[in-house]
Amino acid sequence: MTATSELTYYIGAFVDELVKSGVNEVVISPGSRSTPIAIMMAEHPNLNIKVLIDERSAAFYALGLAKVTGKAVALLCTSGTAATNYYPAIVEAYYSRIPLVVITADRPHELRDVGAPQAIDQIKLYGDYAKWFVEMSLPSEDKGKLQYVRTVAARATGTALAAPSGPVHLNFPLAEPLVPDLSLENIWTRHHEKVLSIMENNLGKLTITESEAIKISTLLSENKKGVIVCGEIKDDEHLRAQIVALAEKLQYPILADPLSQLRSGVHRKQVIVEGYDAFLRGEHALQELKPEVIIRFGSMPVSKFLSLYIKKTDCLQLIVDGDGTWRDPTLQATHIIHSDEALFCEAILPKLPVVNEQADWLNKFLLINETTKKVLTNHLDDVPLFEGKVISQLQQILPASSCLFVGNSMPIRDLDTFFFTNNKRIKLLANRGANGIDGVVSSALAASSVHEHTVLVIGDLSFYHDMNGLLAAKLLNLNITIVLINNNGGGIFSFLPQSKVEKHFEALFGTPTDLPFGHAVALYNGQYDKVENWQDFHEKMEHAFSTKGLNVIEVSTNRLENEQLHRKMWENVSREIQLSRKKEF
Amino acid sequence: MTATSELTYYIGAFVDELVKSGVNEVVISPGSRSTPIAIMMAEHPNLNIKVLIDERSAAFYALGLAKVTGKAVALLCTSGTAATNYYPAIVEAYYSRIPLVVITADRPHELRDVGAPQAIDQIKLYGDYAKWFVEMSLPSEDKGKLQYVRTVAARATGTALAAPSGPVHLNFPLAEPLVPDLSLENIWTRHHEKVLSIMENNLGKLTITESEAIKISTLLSENKKGVIVCGEIKDDEHLRAQIVALAEKLQYPILADPLSQLRSGVHRKQVIVEGYDAFLRGEHALQELKPEVIIRFGSMPVSKFLSLYIKKTDCLQLIVDGDGTWRDPTLQATHIIHSDEALFCEAILPKLPVVNEQADWLNKFLLINETTKKVLTNHLDDVPLFEGKVISQLQQILPASSCLFVGNSMPIRDLDTFFFTNNKRIKLLANRGANGIDGVVSSALAASSVHEHTVLVIGDLSFYHDMNGLLAAKLLNLNITIVLINNNGGGIFSFLPQSKVEKHFEALFGTPTDLPFGHAVALYNGQYDKVENWQDFHEKMEHAFSTKGLNVIEVSTNRLENEQLHRKMWENVSREIQLSRKKEF
Repeated sequence: MTATSELTYYIGAFVDELVKSGVNEVVISPGSRSTPIAIMMAEHPNLNIKVLIDERSAAFYALGLAKVTGKAVALLCTSGTAATNYYPAIVEAYYSRIPLVVITADRPHELRDVGAPQAIDQIKLYGDYAKWFVEMSLPSEDKGKLQYVRTVAARATGTALAAPSGPVHLNFPLAEPLVPDLSLENIWTRHHEKVLSIMENNLGKLTITESEAIKISTLLSENKKGVIVCGEIKDDEHLRAQIVALAEKLQYPILADPLSQLRSGVHRKQVIVEGYDAFLRGEHALQELKPEVIIRFGSMPVSKFLSLYIKKTDCLQLIVDGDGTWRDPTLQATHIIHSDEALFCEAILPKLPVVNEQADWLNKFLLINETTKKVLTNHLDDVPLFEGKVISQLQQILPASSCLFVGNSMPIRDLDTFFFTNNKRIKLLANRGANGIDGVVSSALAASSVHEHTVLVIGDLSFYHDMNGLLAAKLLNLNITIVLINNNGGGIFSFLPQSKVEKHFEALFGTPTDLPFGHAVALYNGQYDKVENWQDFHEKMEHAFSTKGLNVIEVSTNRLENEQLHRKMWENVSREIQLSRKKEF
Repeated sequence: MTATSELTYYIGAFVDELVKSGVNEVVISPGSRSTPIAIMMAEHPNLNIKVLIDERSAAFYALGLAKVTGKAVALLCTSGTAATNYYPAIVEAYYSRIPLVVITADRPHELRDVGAPQAIDQIKLYGDYAKWFVEMSLPSEDKGKLQYVRTVAARATGTALAAPSGPVHLNFPLAEPLVPDLSLENIWTRHHEKVLSIMENNLGKLTITESEAIKISTLLSENKKGVIVCGEIKDDEHLRAQIVALAEKLQYPILADPLSQLRSGVHRKQVIVEGYDAFLRGEHALQELKPEVIIRFGSMPVSKFLSLYIKKTDCLQLIVDGDGTWRDPTLQATHIIHSDEALFCEAILPKLPVVNEQADWLNKFLLINETTKKVLTNHLDDVPLFEGKVISQLQQILPASSCLFVGNSMPIRDLDTFFFTNNKRIKLLANRGANGIDGVVSSALAASSVHEHTVLVIGDLSFYHDMNGLLAAKLLNLNITIVLINNNGGGIFSFLPQSKVEKHFEALFGTPTDLPFGHAVALYNGQYDKVENWQDFHEKMEHAFSTKGLNVIEVSTNRLENEQLHRKMWENVSREIQLSRKKEF
């Protein structure tokens, strides 16, 4: 028994159990203190390692990977500020409920808080953002210690995955020597200790009782005018079918956020309404569409006007949350229902009357939605390079099975407005836990490692913020097309009240950087192109789809022009709805 | 009294007091929730604002600015993950004792923890790394509230500066409307409320008593063989003179870390020894130089071999710390003395015997040091592009008054070995709180905004990590010369035991990125040049000094060759010392 064998068997058992409990991918950032874990991870036959240098981007890459695979992904870094660079992605993972197993190496106890180099206090480094924090024991090959380290590994994966999913943090104090001995026998199972993960990790689901289901279905039968609002929710064919079936039976429209994955796919879409952000701005529509009941699934939708519609409506509001949390910034909920969303639909559906006669109510939504989409589409016909049109163009151009990742601020809002229902299988993604402009490039690159065709639409400030993330494209040979919407600064601020205060506006909010991004793309050996017009956009996108590697297509727009075009559309939508309403009578 | 006037006067009083209490610089990252604070800061006549988009780089810029000015610097960002990007710099500031006033905007209470967009839990976001955290009251123009907000502002600055200096965090919940009204009268002082900062903020200093001074001086008089070790410490001419006077009177050598600022400057340097990292590797030198007492000032020095020398020596060890903390990773301290370092010297000096006869002890150090420096210098004579020689060349080339900022890992170690005592005024800087490779570019750029000639020596991984920081050079029109030592990966790992394990080494530790950094420099409109030989290096450095803006000079080296050259030098130093020792007898 030597320090090296203790280290080898202890870390070996940990890594082995981590893999057996379901972690197949780890993103490692280089460092010295983390040496034994990194080497054992690289040595494990069933673990894929990705090495990325900037921990901030590395963590957002891991987040993206967990998002598209639905599995827990591990992160490993060394001691010191390295670990603090994970913080943005950890907070995003916490709010977007993404399972991460964050592993940090640390100095041993005697080198803490005494001014030793690269030693920082890593105990509960991420505060309440880690669902579970463990200060690990020192390495030992004692059988009890190996059982312990296996249990922690399996429990870490299980805890990260359990509802609501999120990040867990394991901190490993490690003393020298730091190099494991790979020539030892049975490095993965020293004592044939019990392997926990062979027991299936059964993650329970919340559900409602029979009597609650009866109460709720009665409530819904009594309230004929209802809407279903669906925000970001897990990507599951069965769940989609259930929500659609519920809406059809109730004859409620589904106001479907793009991240609900309800706008694209093979499910029925007759009751899906997507133009709400535009038409709920008009007073007339609001009057017309006052509901008696709102059922909400998933996170709060992107649309501010849909949020206001929910907030201003004094009616029954049922929030169904399979993660057992309280997501209601409108503070209008009348029922918080902790139930798996599919189980909820399954429980309610058989209890509803066979046909719910209220076609008028649903049709009103469908008509207004059609009008809205027509106005928006007409407007796009001959606009110059306009941010909204990028989305509608992509909807046409994207291959039948693909992934569209969008940045925060403007792209996600344009996606909301201009991405209509269709029968392709386009997965729509964004980092909407905390809506940061940070880390988006890295998360999208991770998505591209799983989806054959991935397009990221991102603004220039967000692209700049995570340019370091582009290194993954080069080192991991990823294929992605990035549509860089360059309005030279913070486009969204033009829509906010501070844009009316001219003084200080450009310095504090407009913040033009005038960066020639072609250089950034060249640094990572990517293809860069600037688009002149829509014909050009089509051709360059087609070319990018058939070109391997990193492709960046820049679309230059003007912030002021962009804001005016948006506003003009919304006014026209409002006017058209009013006109068509008059025609009705 | 309107919501807007409450907002304006409240934030006005805060910003006004912040400035009056000594904050003249704020680094702002754009955002929506922080709008009122940003606008009021931009409006204040005595506050300089710098707008930087990536909060991680922004915070390291603020850290660098506080480091070179000695003043508290403010940071402002919006709600959400923006604030988490500050974490690396906040941890560095905590350990390197740099005063920062971190201001984050937050959503009002009703939008917290309910799934509202861009709302994260910001309460104690930085854990124990904020010396002081305040959840601010909502805006109000009530006189009591304005007194309150002023008090918090003044106290925040005072707390950040008080020993040990560090970061404080103020979190402002803000509801809409977010735009202040600059046309209101007396926006800075609504009620002529008491301005706290007109009372001088007297930061007390720790000192020892008369009787303790007698005890300590007696102890030192009885122990003739002593050394003074000085790590990073505040840059103060008087302090330097006091430490040198103490050493001269005791006839102790000063083992002076580069960041002690004792190697360069106008003070006397006869007893300063800088070759210790090289000569303390040899067993012979260690035997010869066993002390009876060690006095330590400042943080732990960079040199691992100096640390081992301290750790292995069983003798009296006095640690003098003006910040009242416990900095002793060697765990060998016999006396922890909480006293301002200059006051300590002043108290002891008059109590020591007039002449301390022990020239032999001191001379032994001085001779070995001279031998070491000669061997190192000879070695540099005809080496090819070698990382260590960059430092010695810079020492010659740098203007008489300048700033040399170095990155962590290799550059700081080469600085330690190859930067010898001289009479120029070269300020030596590094981020050694947590020794991260992150944020170095930004901190050095901040130094360049104060020092006329600033050179940053940095490795390729560290440069890559904070490439986003280069935007400051462009937006703020800074002049800097960056010597980019490109060994294509993590050079320091070649010196560590894992380099002996060939398997996985390049993938996990070497991590070559093969980035053509010229593109990164072009992105920010800088000058980029690659150096062929030393003649070329000289010419290009001279040219860079006379060229405004961002200048990057790349020196390509080979990791393996670099390691071998270092090792050969250390062996020769050891051999020469042994030889010269034999000659003596």
